[in-house]
Amino acid sequence: MPYVVICCLIRTEAGPTICGGADSDADLMEYLGASLVTRAGNNFPQWVAPTCPAMVLDKLESCGYTLVTCAGTGQTIVWTLHKSA
Amino acid sequence: MPYVVICCLIRTEAGPTICGGADSDADLMEYLGASLVTRAGNNFPQWVAPTCPAMVLDKLESCGYTLVTCAGTGQTIVWTLHKSA
Amino acid sequence: MPYVVICCLIRTEAGPTICGGADSDADLMEYLGASLVTRAGNNFPQWVAPTCPAMVLDKLESCGYTLVTCAGTGQTIVWTLHKSA
Amino acid sequence: MPYVVICCLIRTEAGPTICGGADSDADLMEYLGASLVTRAGNNFPQWVAPTCPAMVLDKLESCGYTLVTCAGTGQTIVWTLHKSA
Amino acid sequence: MPYVVICCLIRTEAGPTICGGADSDADLMEYLGASLVTRAGNNFPQWVAPTCPAMVLDKLESCGYTLVTCAGTGQTIVWTLHKSA
Repeated sequence: MPYVVICCLIRTEAGPTICGGADSDADLMEYLGASLVTRAGNNFPQWVAPTCPAMVLDKLESCGYTLVTCAGTGQTIVWTLHKSA
Repeated sequence: MPYVVICCLIRTEAGPTICGGADSDADLMEYLGASLVTRAGNNFPQWVAPTCPAMVLDKLESCGYTLVTCAGTGQTIVWTLHKSA
Repeated sequence: MPYVVICCLIRTEAGPTICGGADSDADLMEYLGASLVTRAGNNFPQWVAPTCPAMVLDKLESCGYTLVTCAGTGQTIVWTLHKSA
Repeated sequence: MPYVVICCLIRTEAGPTICGGADSDADLMEYLGASLVTRAGNNFPQWVAPTCPAMVLDKLESCGYTLVTCAGTGQTIVWTLHKSA
Repeated sequence: MPYVVICCLIRTEAGPTICGGADSDADLMEYLGASLVTRAGNNFPQWVAPTCPAMVLDKLESCGYTLVTCAGTGQTIVWTLHKSA
């Protein structure tokens, strides 16, 4: 899975950071310190790490992922990373 | 068609992902697992895949597309990809 | 004019696409299939193409423009392209 | 000052473009055609050019600045440019 | 910590700029001129610099950080920078 998409609510200086969903690589998610939770009102699970996005980006770099682009919508900021084969 | 624009609603951890419209390459859209639907209230069709954006990005990479940039507006996140000739 | 800025309303799968304003290169705008219109309530003209943004990006590439970045605000998505001298 | 941040309100086809603030390089701002104004309700000045963002980007390129990224928030679109030393 | 995420409210021409949180490198934050404050209603601290984002970007460049991408959400603009090892 060369692409990873992480996001956080509008505060970027503190966690939590959402690191993935049902299709994510569980080993990678656990390395990021994320737990799989299903929030009230959602019908899909999310991997949620307690740390801030910058720390998750640092860990993803150590796994070979590079930040490509970032976007914001509503209250959410989304970072898309890529790992070359 | 060197450019592809995909988008999803505000949740990035789960599908569906909108992969294109009437002008999109139907073979590519079907490879992405998308179906052509016209939602109530729209006067144009959309190719909709049930998978999350990261999986669509992975499939597009296997077809030679590279992620250039990402943007958010309203409740929508938009990724623009490019394939070199 | 090395930079071109195009935008569309929140739907990216269908046109129209706004390709420029009073200062844009008219020859380029006509090549993109855009017409110069002044919408009710605006005191400035816009070049509007009936096609979706991906098709406008494809045509701009054939003129030597490269996509640099994309942003969204309110109901609008904005792509900024650049042509090297 | 290797970085310059410019922005405009939601219309990208027409001016004005906000080119900087109190800390900006006055010579560069005047080259961009901007005037230093303090709008009602603000306690800080802004350099405002009457031209559209694409023309400001063109002028900044002629001064050695390259567009890095673009973002939108609320009614504002922000372009960040960089000049290598 | 190869990644740094800074942000500001919707005005980009003036400070303050939020430079980090509890996990940030304190030496770097102090070099940026930021102070650690906890705002009313927040249960986490923020490093806040009085200067505008462009000046913070300039200082980060002098520490080896490169701007990767920028995003906006709600009233906040977010810049993500990276420092190669």
